[in-house]
Amino acid sequence: MRLSELAALVGGRLEGAAAPDAELTGVASLHDALPGDVSFLANPKYARQLASTRATAVLVRADAGLPPPAAGGALVLVDSPDLAFAKVVPLFTRPPIVRAPGVHPTAVVDPTATLGKDVSIGPLCVVGPGAVVGDRCVLEAHVVVADEAILGEDCHLYPMVSVRERCRLGRRVTIHNGTVIGADGFGYNTKVGPDGIVVEKIPQLGNVEIGDDVEIGANAAIDRARFGSTVIGPHTKIDNLVQIGHNVRTGPYCGIVSQVGIAGSTHLGTGVMIWGQAGLAGHLEIGDRVEILAHAGVAGDLREPGQYLGSPAVPKREAIRQFHIPRSVENLKADVAALKARLEALEEKLA
Amino acid sequence: MRLSELAALVGGRLEGAAAPDAELTGVASLHDALPGDVSFLANPKYARQLASTRATAVLVRADAGLPPPAAGGALVLVDSPDLAFAKVVPLFTRPPIVRAPGVHPTAVVDPTATLGKDVSIGPLCVVGPGAVVGDRCVLEAHVVVADEAILGEDCHLYPMVSVRERCRLGRRVTIHNGTVIGADGFGYNTKVGPDGIVVEKIPQLGNVEIGDDVEIGANAAIDRARFGSTVIGPHTKIDNLVQIGHNVRTGPYCGIVSQVGIAGSTHLGTGVMIWGQAGLAGHLEIGDRVEILAHAGVAGDLREPGQYLGSPAVPKREAIRQFHIPRSVENLKADVAALKARLEALEEKLA
Amino acid sequence: MRLSELAALVGGRLEGAAAPDAELTGVASLHDALPGDVSFLANPKYARQLASTRATAVLVRADAGLPPPAAGGALVLVDSPDLAFAKVVPLFTRPPIVRAPGVHPTAVVDPTATLGKDVSIGPLCVVGPGAVVGDRCVLEAHVVVADEAILGEDCHLYPMVSVRERCRLGRRVTIHNGTVIGADGFGYNTKVGPDGIVVEKIPQLGNVEIGDDVEIGANAAIDRARFGSTVIGPHTKIDNLVQIGHNVRTGPYCGIVSQVGIAGSTHLGTGVMIWGQAGLAGHLEIGDRVEILAHAGVAGDLREPGQYLGSPAVPKREAIRQFHIPRSVENLKADVAALKARLEALEEKLA
Repeated sequence: MRLSELAALVGGRLEGAAAPDAELTGVASLHDALPGDVSFLANPKYARQLASTRATAVLVRADAGLPPPAAGGALVLVDSPDLAFAKVVPLFTRPPIVRAPGVHPTAVVDPTATLGKDVSIGPLCVVGPGAVVGDRCVLEAHVVVADEAILGEDCHLYPMVSVRERCRLGRRVTIHNGTVIGADGFGYNTKVGPDGIVVEKIPQLGNVEIGDDVEIGANAAIDRARFGSTVIGPHTKIDNLVQIGHNVRTGPYCGIVSQVGIAGSTHLGTGVMIWGQAGLAGHLEIGDRVEILAHAGVAGDLREPGQYLGSPAVPKREAIRQFHIPRSVENLKADVAALKARLEALEEKLA
Repeated sequence: MRLSELAALVGGRLEGAAAPDAELTGVASLHDALPGDVSFLANPKYARQLASTRATAVLVRADAGLPPPAAGGALVLVDSPDLAFAKVVPLFTRPPIVRAPGVHPTAVVDPTATLGKDVSIGPLCVVGPGAVVGDRCVLEAHVVVADEAILGEDCHLYPMVSVRERCRLGRRVTIHNGTVIGADGFGYNTKVGPDGIVVEKIPQLGNVEIGDDVEIGANAAIDRARFGSTVIGPHTKIDNLVQIGHNVRTGPYCGIVSQVGIAGSTHLGTGVMIWGQAGLAGHLEIGDRVEILAHAGVAGDLREPGQYLGSPAVPKREAIRQFHIPRSVENLKADVAALKARLEALEEKLA
Repeated sequence: MRLSELAALVGGRLEGAAAPDAELTGVASLHDALPGDVSFLANPKYARQLASTRATAVLVRADAGLPPPAAGGALVLVDSPDLAFAKVVPLFTRPPIVRAPGVHPTAVVDPTATLGKDVSIGPLCVVGPGAVVGDRCVLEAHVVVADEAILGEDCHLYPMVSVRERCRLGRRVTIHNGTVIGADGFGYNTKVGPDGIVVEKIPQLGNVEIGDDVEIGANAAIDRARFGSTVIGPHTKIDNLVQIGHNVRTGPYCGIVSQVGIAGSTHLGTGVMIWGQAGLAGHLEIGDRVEILAHAGVAGDLREPGQYLGSPAVPKREAIRQFHIPRSVENLKADVAALKARLEALEEKLA
């Protein structure tokens, strides 16, 4: 592929030193790129990398007003460098692996389970009694769909995924390796009886219901409800190692980044975004379009849209102000010492 | 079931507008309930939901002095709404799934393993050489019990659980999907040799010993001891995605909530409670009845019972005071500015 | 084994009350030891345990100048108590379990996969089309090596490990149970279209490349690159439940402790150490020999070697100073009140 062909493919305009017939041979980040590579710049924060990249072509936002790569490559001006790059990458990478329909002879499918049309059930999967697997679902190796669980059409479950009894997935749900849908929520009653402490388990009799077009990363855990359902709204995306407690409900279009924990019965509105390692207490209401930043600890309702930060989490502006407290305290110490000196001078004068 | 029958079942007294012969058809939270549903209120914090719930019956503490639901339902006054509700929920939900005894033909049980009476070994389980599975244990699909591991009576292991070599579980231990018992602890010696850095692995030759009546959530990890045993005390409950380092010992009746991490050789007393995402450094002593609140970071021993919060964790009262520091600093700035003005006035007067 | 034989084995010198022919029967920590046990003291912080331990022999650093155990045991003076103890422990513990070469009849190995010499493929493993398993690799039960993945020589994968399609492991890589290598990174484009919000998945077309001599704990997740490779440098050690985002690169000799999260495209230099539960934002540069302490939140580049602490993380000295802010604020309040009183006295005097 030549540079001019690339520009035509992504509907972009060329700018810079590289010849339109320069040959393109791969894709890479600005930092890693060698001559012949196509790269991209989506986040203006990294614009200074244009000074050093050796990429032959760099996809950039047309309205960003960026200078061409100093080392001689060309800019390709487009509306969305992310999407344009996604279009280009497959040309230089091997095609994704596709599973043929069929049931592997080592899979254990209960005779009372229902398999849809053109499903692909991989080696050593288990599909339990009364379970339903929708049309065109792909279960890679070592997936367990337990009793009476229901998968909508076109789901894709990677190895070691567990869908526990009676949970339900919508259509086009993708779940990566090792994730557990529907383990028991954490619920006990502790009391002191005549023979000492008694810890009684509260049965977890509900399930998990996952909407259409949800994707969940690896080794996450979404607990079944105590009763009723834990609900993941459609188009919500959940990253690796996330914990979702029992009876949580997320709205549609939420994003929940790696290692976030959401305690039981907390509700998220529409389009809530939660960044890595943040934690939310239970029984909270988080409003539409709230964004909770990384590492935050949320202990109360957040009803107003906007960004929240810190532990306990506060509006971002306030959190940033708190970051300046160490300096304020140093300044106050100096101010107080100066006042004290002046006061002493006055006291002496008057004495 | 009628409202009056419900009251009789839970030994409760009715109060409010709903007729004693009103029909009950399901269970739900106060927030989600529709007419016909039974709900409950255990935490007085949510009492205001009585003003809006549409539930026909709400189980509440007899001594809470709450007003009946504004929308016309009845209160059912009981000692413990939690326990009463646990009694009611099964009436409106499908019975839990029970595994019949037997060994699935696809399970791989080593001929030197010992299986107790009436065990249920699911599809594609692996029970290794010299392992022992106690009477009436249930291994769901895809469980691996490795060489010489020992399970007491009545354990229940969900799919993808790994019990590593030589680990021991007591009686009535429940472990949810994907949890790993007995992976190696994190231990290395790093030194600079003549040919550069050498990182040497410290062998992890101990095991994990889990007491009776322990429950562990999904995708947790409890590391084997460097030597001796990592010990989980009886009746301790551990949530999803928890990390327990090598040679940790927990007392009985501890509760460890999701995403908590406890580093190596830390000891917990009796009835220690640790809330979500808290982290404990290694080699600490945590006394009986200490409660570590969510998101706390514990870097030193905590010997006195009570609640601890923050990172580094301090007694809760102190932590709450720290939350007010931003306001204190603002006040101090104002105070200092006022003093300065008054001082300047004096200085002028004297000049 | 006798005490004198122990001293000879580790090349150590005896000091203290125990007789050279005292019999040794086990190993234990200083805290847990009974008479007959060998113990060790590597960290001088625990030297006070020498006053109470009942161990018969305690391995200590020759240059530490420690007093013999008060209860009558002997010190064994050596260069490295850790390494000496590692030599002693196997004498009192059962030998590690070794897997014989061979392919278990229940393993599913694709005919197009390549197996090296003397591999051990356990029960119910899956080795996909085009995958390569190097000489002497051990795959315990229930390991999935997906399509076109490549394992170098002498790797050891524990049950439930997933190596996703096209990922590559070097030589002598050990991975513990449930860890996922190569799930998709978390990447989406969200835009508002004529019919509402559209969330478009950014294909994750790269892989993961893991260097020689890497060890990874249980239930961790290392995401495949968006394009190119996520790279784990040789001799790097990763603990349980760690999250490594797409396109992260670690240098050699890094240590990443449990529950750490590293967001996409962050680069670690050589010998970077990150302690438990710390979180690193994406697109950061972390320099050689940086040490990030437990629970820290890193939001910017850290280029200077040294220790960093807090959230947002700052040099340790500065973080420690911040821990004293509550006291500083209290002191300031008192100082300001005192100044105010003195000022009022002056004002009265002058009035």
